[in-house]
This record gives sequence, structure tokens and C-alpha cells, in this order.
Amino acid sequence: MGDVVGRAGRTAIADHLPGMVKDWSLDLVVVNGENAAGGFGITEAIYQEFLDAGADAVTLGNHSWDQREALVFIERAERLVRPANYPRGTPGRGAALIETKNGKHALVVNALGRVFMTPFDDPFAALERELGACPLGVAADAIVIDFHCEASSEKQGIGFFCDGRASLVVGTHTHVPTADHQILSGGTAYMTDAGMTGDYDSIIGMQKEEPLRRFTSGIPSGRFEPAAGTATLSAVAVETDDTTGLALRIAPVRVGGRLEPTTPKFWLS
Amino acid sequence: MGDVVGRAGRTAIADHLPGMVKDWSLDLVVVNGENAAGGFGITEAIYQEFLDAGADAVTLGNHSWDQREALVFIERAERLVRPANYPRGTPGRGAALIETKNGKHALVVNALGRVFMTPFDDPFAALERELGACPLGVAADAIVIDFHCEASSEKQGIGFFCDGRASLVVGTHTHVPTADHQILSGGTAYMTDAGMTGDYDSIIGMQKEEPLRRFTSGIPSGRFEPAAGTATLSAVAVETDDTTGLALRIAPVRVGGRLEPTTPKFWLS
Amino acid sequence: MGDVVGRAGRTAIADHLPGMVKDWSLDLVVVNGENAAGGFGITEAIYQEFLDAGADAVTLGNHSWDQREALVFIERAERLVRPANYPRGTPGRGAALIETKNGKHALVVNALGRVFMTPFDDPFAALERELGACPLGVAADAIVIDFHCEASSEKQGIGFFCDGRASLVVGTHTHVPTADHQILSGGTAYMTDAGMTGDYDSIIGMQKEEPLRRFTSGIPSGRFEPAAGTATLSAVAVETDDTTGLALRIAPVRVGGRLEPTTPKFWLS
Amino acid sequence: MGDVVGRAGRTAIADHLPGMVKDWSLDLVVVNGENAAGGFGITEAIYQEFLDAGADAVTLGNHSWDQREALVFIERAERLVRPANYPRGTPGRGAALIETKNGKHALVVNALGRVFMTPFDDPFAALERELGACPLGVAADAIVIDFHCEASSEKQGIGFFCDGRASLVVGTHTHVPTADHQILSGGTAYMTDAGMTGDYDSIIGMQKEEPLRRFTSGIPSGRFEPAAGTATLSAVAVETDDTTGLALRIAPVRVGGRLEPTTPKFWLS
Ligand SMILES: [Fe+2]
Ligand SMILES: [Fe+2]
Ligand SMILES: [Fe+2]
Ligand SMILES: [Fe+2]
Ligand SMILES: [Fe+2]
Ligand SMILES: [Fe+2]
Ligand SMILES: [Fe+2]
Ligand SMILES: [Fe+2]
Repeated sequence: MGDVVGRAGRTAIADHLPGMVKDWSLDLVVVNGENAAGGFGITEAIYQEFLDAGADAVTLGNHSWDQREALVFIERAERLVRPANYPRGTPGRGAALIETKNGKHALVVNALGRVFMTPFDDPFAALERELGACPLGVAADAIVIDFHCEASSEKQGIGFFCDGRASLVVGTHTHVPTADHQILSGGTAYMTDAGMTGDYDSIIGMQKEEPLRRFTSGIPSGRFEPAAGTATLSAVAVETDDTTGLALRIAPVRVGGRLEPTTPKFWLS
Repeated sequence: MGDVVGRAGRTAIADHLPGMVKDWSLDLVVVNGENAAGGFGITEAIYQEFLDAGADAVTLGNHSWDQREALVFIERAERLVRPANYPRGTPGRGAALIETKNGKHALVVNALGRVFMTPFDDPFAALERELGACPLGVAADAIVIDFHCEASSEKQGIGFFCDGRASLVVGTHTHVPTADHQILSGGTAYMTDAGMTGDYDSIIGMQKEEPLRRFTSGIPSGRFEPAAGTATLSAVAVETDDTTGLALRIAPVRVGGRLEPTTPKFWLS
Repeated sequence: MGDVVGRAGRTAIADHLPGMVKDWSLDLVVVNGENAAGGFGITEAIYQEFLDAGADAVTLGNHSWDQREALVFIERAERLVRPANYPRGTPGRGAALIETKNGKHALVVNALGRVFMTPFDDPFAALERELGACPLGVAADAIVIDFHCEASSEKQGIGFFCDGRASLVVGTHTHVPTADHQILSGGTAYMTDAGMTGDYDSIIGMQKEEPLRRFTSGIPSGRFEPAAGTATLSAVAVETDDTTGLALRIAPVRVGGRLEPTTPKFWLS
Repeated sequence: MGDVVGRAGRTAIADHLPGMVKDWSLDLVVVNGENAAGGFGITEAIYQEFLDAGADAVTLGNHSWDQREALVFIERAERLVRPANYPRGTPGRGAALIETKNGKHALVVNALGRVFMTPFDDPFAALERELGACPLGVAADAIVIDFHCEASSEKQGIGFFCDGRASLVVGTHTHVPTADHQILSGGTAYMTDAGMTGDYDSIIGMQKEEPLRRFTSGIPSGRFEPAAGTATLSAVAVETDDTTGLALRIAPVRVGGRLEPTTPKFWLS
């Protein structure tokens, strides 16, 4: 589930995720929660809300610490995963081996890109370490990499870099779903951006008046507030091979709100 | 048609565009050609190739002048449109009123974003000028804005800024198609990025080895070369109202290559 | 006078500027005030304080509007000059023809660079317009350009671009004085950065703990607060030719605080 | 010695450095050579030229590999130091313990900043490692850190971060000398930028026509070529305590060319 933005996004998760888990017998659900709290960061209550709705892991991004309580509760929130390429000593974890709904084990990794973003350590090296420490098909039945990043080139680079070693590399951060879902030649499912779970009558999930004013005048004149219209839940679905952990099928998921709806045909009953 | 990358992209245009023009009775075809010549810029021969295949206008972007001949031939290439927010004195034009295949007049505008890009003058002001000088439904039967830009926020900003005043605002430059096509509340069709017309087994259309080496080592060790596998033609289709010039329907177009194919259902015979 | 940062910087202006005006018979004093109010922006009271201390004009920069009252009082503050390349419709003025202490007229212009900064319109074009509208030696007895910019290349570019058409091009914004003061071949005095008027036991004028924490941890954990130690007044002094308005001599000025002191030898009594 | 740019810069080194070594009995000379070969990178012949002129170590920066031979000869060039925060596996070394002219041992470290630059790994963490592995006054008689970086804030951050643990932190890369040389409270000499050793009738050492054209038109129309006028040797001089290795005195050095000359008063005979 791509970046959940504010209350509108959380409502979409609460409304749609439990049914999806049931209807599609989902084994693992990963939600990007970096914008869940009013557009900026995540609280412990919201984290719990996501788990209650069916999430098995929650990932973050450049907004990880916008709610300062996250620096504290992340230590006890074992399914909350912050970027793996943060500096040594950062609270929390960059990867978590999660027990899935069907009793398997999935590695969930989060990393931050560096192109057009506040730079952290090399995400390629960080992923190399995580994938080396917990190989797919050996230590993990599935591996999901949420690569939080601006540039399509860097996302594709991470996709190919991890190809054959992860079940899914999916980008987040741009808040717009891409239509380039595919299975790479090595067997890793890939999609440049999962899109935002939020109101698409907005500028990246925020009410559009203030960002528009800033674009045209260069003068901030208020806060960014999340848009409150009905959200589209935007996500990507992958079916993996039980033996190898590689991807067999990939399809986008978009439900509710303004975007054209789509669900995985391979899961239609 | 999103950024055509190299020979693979040009082949996809030559193979698919003439049939589309015919089958769908297209009135206006706009092709982004900024990467058509080996990934970098455009030549006069390629510009002509696009017109021959059915393009009515060709737009550019941050790679406009990578082939230096473009600075010269653009003066006689009346259907070649470079960003409108280039400095005064730049060769060529930032907007062109084009006679369409059905004898109407369409304004085609190109502009460059400034977020995460080499900055030029304010694209909002530039579009305000162009839209003011040639209003939709008055001086133009349709208006297509190709906004060439990195950040999704800026693209959405331009979309809302032009809403009700253009038939279509479509982004280019990220080389990945987005799945957020919609008609905004004022009647303008919008899609964050048309995607690239190129080989998607690549990094933004380029063979992936060199960009991957640069990402992991930080050391350039060769040129970027366009990937040569079968390209996906990636584009967006819009049906407009004859009276207002506003959008009635929008749908993505993806044909050939690795991406999941899709064509406008409203044009299926 | 380079960017005055917070109370420490304002105290240095109050302590040293009146004496300088008197001892050196200064005809024109320009103070960059973009960081005067607690490091962020300027208030009307502080603007008045600068005039009272001997300033003839106050310039701004990327922090122009950090104190929102500036958007209002700038309309009546005739000696307050904000960047000339802000969008049309921005309050205030980008250039002001100021009556000097000796009854002459000096044009004071402010502009923002675009390299590594939030981009506004082309500063070269903006300066071309201002210099064209009020030529040196014709409509202005002196012309001072405060170019507020990050990159040394862009500052030098503006220097050469204006050479022969301005008395002084001086950079601001990096908060560090440069030692490259010189008179360019066309007669314009040039210095890449005037330096900050602030406490140099700091990170660009701010207490160093918070910026250091952000650099090492990537986690904001408080506000930036101006450093409160004794400030160095950092500035540049120019003597112009009465007839041409071009520069005859240039020297740095640094008084008080931690930096090595220096004053113009050509003005020593 | 700040970034030596092209032949003009090399000539200044050859002309002035041998005399300085002799007149001032220099124990250690470090030259930044990242722009020595026509403005872009360094060759083995030029590296040798610098050693012959009196350099004990040569540092690099973002242009390290512009001459591809550097990737090879750096392995045998024991006094050539490239940024310490390059990825694992990068040829060469990020720090070298150099025998000085007076038989002592000096650690020379090079690191790249990340603000406004192509990002590499955390320079703070890299310097922490280098300083921990070779402590000042214990394993090294002096430590010189060349921090190659754009933003003054990041340079000052590194200065304070290393304060008390290095003899000198000096910035390079902006190609403009700063006038903020000082000894920090912990005893480390600091200067934001050593300035370029090159022709100051230029844009950062390059002939100014082409960069000016790019600034005003946005269109590249040729290569950058180093300016060929007489260069200013621009550097910083430090006297250290024999016991602690900390700094006792710091002064800028500027000789020849267009900049106002200055030499350390504490070394005048
Ligand atoms: Fe987000
Ligand atoms: Fe994000
Ligand atoms: Fe492109
Ligand atoms: Fe582009
Ligand atoms: Fe400032
Ligand atoms: Fe500033
Ligand atoms: Fe350099
Ligand atoms: Fe550099």
C-alpha cells in the first residue's frame, strides 16, 4: 500500500484492507505510513490502526520522524521499518523478518534514495547487506523492498540491482502510481511507484491551494493540510512462488476515490 | 506520445502510430521527441520521420539542444515546439497553433518544470501568457500542454493551474507512465506522466549497465547508450468536446514491449 | 554589510556602523537584512533600526518573507529592496534609486541566484532590465548589486555580466566573507560574498548544536537559534569615481568578534 | 593549496611553491589537484610535478576520476588521497599517513560533502573513523582534513565536528578563498575555503564566455576551457604545536595574479 496520506488515506485502509485480506487471502500486507499522521509522519496509535486493519509491516521514508514520538515507539514496534540506510545509531530497524499470515517468513526492507533527496548512505550497499544477511528462498520466503525515492532512474537501478534476490521492489514517495509493473528477467516483481493512498483531488495528497500559491508566488502563506476527499487506495499485488520466493504475477490495485479502479485479475474469484 | 527514446522508440512510433491514426481517426498527435536521437535530442530527419508517421506536433524538454542542429532547423520546423519558458531570444517557439487532421486548430505548448531541474523562468507565468493569448474554445479548438518536469507536485500544480483552460495537461520526463489519468473538475484531462516510448528493460531507456555502475561506484565509465529491445509505445488518449475543447474522456495507451498493454476502450470499434 | 544575523549581528551594526559613517564619511550604506529577525527575515522595527544606525538601503534574499509582516510594511519601506526576480505581483521593489548622504543618487538592486536555490526568474535578465532602465553615470551616480546566491560560479557570472555597468557587485547568502575582492576589467568592484555580520562561533550564524545533530543523525530535534556571541561586522567598502560611477578602490571590512579585523587602508586617516 | 586549475594554476605552483617551502621551512604541503589537468582531474605526470615542486600529499574531490588514468595510477601513488567517503572498493585511499619533510607523520584526509553535491556516504562518519584510527598527538603529529564541499554550513559543521581532533580543517571546491580563517575553541585551525590556485579573471578558473553563455541562454555551446591568465596561488598556512598537533596560528596565503597578496606574518623573516 503506497504512502497513506492523512485521515482520508487511513479511512481508505480501514474501509478496504480488511476485505482484501479476506477476499484475496493475503499472506503479507505492507503499508507505507510516512504520511499517515496529518500528512507528516506516524504515531503509535496509527501504527496500531494499520496492524488492526491487516497490515503485517509498516514502512517509512523521508518523513519518518515528523512525529517525534516515532523515535521512541519504533523501538517497541517490531513491525515498523524505517530506512535501512539511516546513520548508525538511528532508533528502530531498516529490515524486519516478519511472520506472515500463513506462517511463513518475509523480509521487509525500507531504503531511501539519494537523487533529489536529502542524502543518506548508499542504498545499494545497504540493500546488498540486507539481502546478503537474509537470502531469498533460504532465510526468507519472500522479500519486499520499499524503495522510497524521487527519481525513476534510481528506482529502476535498485530494481535491477535486486533482481533475482527479492520478491518485489516497489517504489514509494512520488505519491503517483506508475503503470510499469512488470516481472524483471531475474524474477523480481517491480513497479516504480505504488502511488499514494489518499485523495487525488490534491497536490500529492495535500489541499492544493497552498502549494499552488507557493508555486506561483514563491511565498508560503500557511501550512500544508491533507486533502479530505475520498481517497483512492493505491497498491501493488504480487503472487510469489512458494519454493523460490520469486514473483509469479504482479498487478496494480486501485480502489475508491478518483482514480480508475483496478484489481488483480489473477485473484478474481 | 511520451518521450521517444532512441531507435527502439522510433521504431515503435513507426510501427504503431500510422495504424492508430487510422483506426482511431486521430485528429491531433503530439510526440515528445527530446530523446529521439540516440537518447539525446532530435535531428531534422527524425522530426520529419515523426511527421511522416502521423505526428502533428513534436515537443521537447531538457534535452532540446543535445543535437546542436536543432537550434537551427527549429526555425523552419513549424511543428516543433520547445519549452515556452526558455529565455528570450531562444530559437524556435514555445507554443504553436497547429492545424489538425480534421481542419481544426490546436494549441500545443511545451514548458519545463523547475523543481529538481536546471531552472528556467516561471512555467506558471509562461503558461498563463500562452493560455491568455490563445484561449480554449475561442482561439483554439483544443489545447495540449506537455509539461516536462521531474516532481509530481509541480506537475499536479500545473494541472490544477490550467484546469478549465486546456484540453490536456500531460507530464513527460520521468520516462515512466503513471496511472493517475483523470479529468479534473474544470474539464481538463490530466496525467502526471505519459511514460517513455522506449525499451522498458532499461534505466529510463538507457542500457542499464552504465547507470548501475555509476549508482554503485560513483564512477562514470562509459556513455549512456539507448537500450535496443522492443519498445513500448506509451501515450495518453483524450477525446474532447467539439464546442468547449474540454476533455470528455481520457485513457492511457501502451502497445508493444514489456508493459501491460492498454488502449482506450472508448475508441474500440 | 553582509547578512546581519539575529541580535548579535544587529548589535554589531548598532555598535560599529555609526562610527564608520562618520569616520569614513560614507555616502551610501547598504545592509543585507534577510536574517536580522532571529535569523529569519526582517521586521519593520529592525528595518528602522538599520536606517537609524546609518543604512541608506536594506536588501533581502531567500529569507525575505520569513517574518510575514515584511509582505505588508515593505510597501511603505521605500529603502527596503527585495529580489528583483521575484514573480510579478510580489509586494515591494527589486531596485530603488536612493538619495545618498551626499545628495547623489544610487541604484540599489537585489537579485536571487538559481543554482542550488529555490528558483525564481532569470537574474541575468532581471539585472539587464534594471541596468537598462537606470544606466550608471546617466541616471545613477552609483549602482550597488547585492546578488544573493549560493554558487560561486553564478556570482562570478553576474559580476562579469554587469562589469562596466555597476559600481559594485557583491554576493551575499553563504555567510562567509571571501577574499577575492577586486575591480573587474570594466571597472566594477566585485566580491563573491560580503560575509555575515554575526557570531562566527556558529554554523552560518546559528548555534551549532542543532545543525550538527542534523548533519550526523539526519533527525531535526529543535529549532535553529541564532548564536549569541560577539558578532563580526563583515562588509565591503568601495570608493567610486564621481564622474563615471565606476569603482576606484575596494577593500573588505571586518570589525569585532572572531574574524581577523581589517579596514580599508585608503580610508585610514 | 586550494584547487589548482589547469596550466595557469600548475605554473603558479611551480613558480611559487619551491620558494615557500624553503623560505618558510614548510614541513608539510598539501595540494588539491582535482582540477589540475585542463580543469578536470589529474594525471600521473601532474601528480609527479606537484611532488617535485614540494607537495607532500595531493588531494582530490568531485573531479577525482575525470582523467580515467587516475583510477589506475592512484594505486601506486601513495601520496594521492581521494575522498574517504567513496564506496567500498574504490581504488586508492581516503587517508594517508605521510612522512613530513621534518621526519614527523601527518595524516592527510580528504572527504566529500553532500549538500548540493552528488551524494556519497556520510562524511561525518567517515571522518570519525579516520580520526579514531589515527588520533592526533598519538598516531599522527598533525592531521590535515581537506573537506571538499559546496555549502558553508556543512564545511563549518565538519570543522566543529573535528575540533580538537585535527590540526586543520580546510574546505575546497568553491574556488574562492574565504576570509574566515580562525582557530576553533578546541584548537583546530579552520578556513571555509582555501580558494583556487588559478586565474581569477575567470568563472571558477574557466574562461568566462562559455559559462556566461550557458547562464544567459541555457544552451551549452562549447567546452569549458581553463583561463590562461596569471594565476593566484591561494592557500592557507598553519603552525602547529609539536606536542599536541593542534594549531597555534593560521593565515591565508595569496601570491601572484589578481587577488590582493597576503602571506603569514608569523613566518616573515
Ligand atoms: Fe510520502
Ligand atoms: Fe516521501
Ligand atoms: Fe525524456
Ligand atoms: Fe527530460
Ligand atoms: Fe543570509
Ligand atoms: Fe540567504
Ligand atoms: Fe575544484
Ligand atoms: Fe570540486
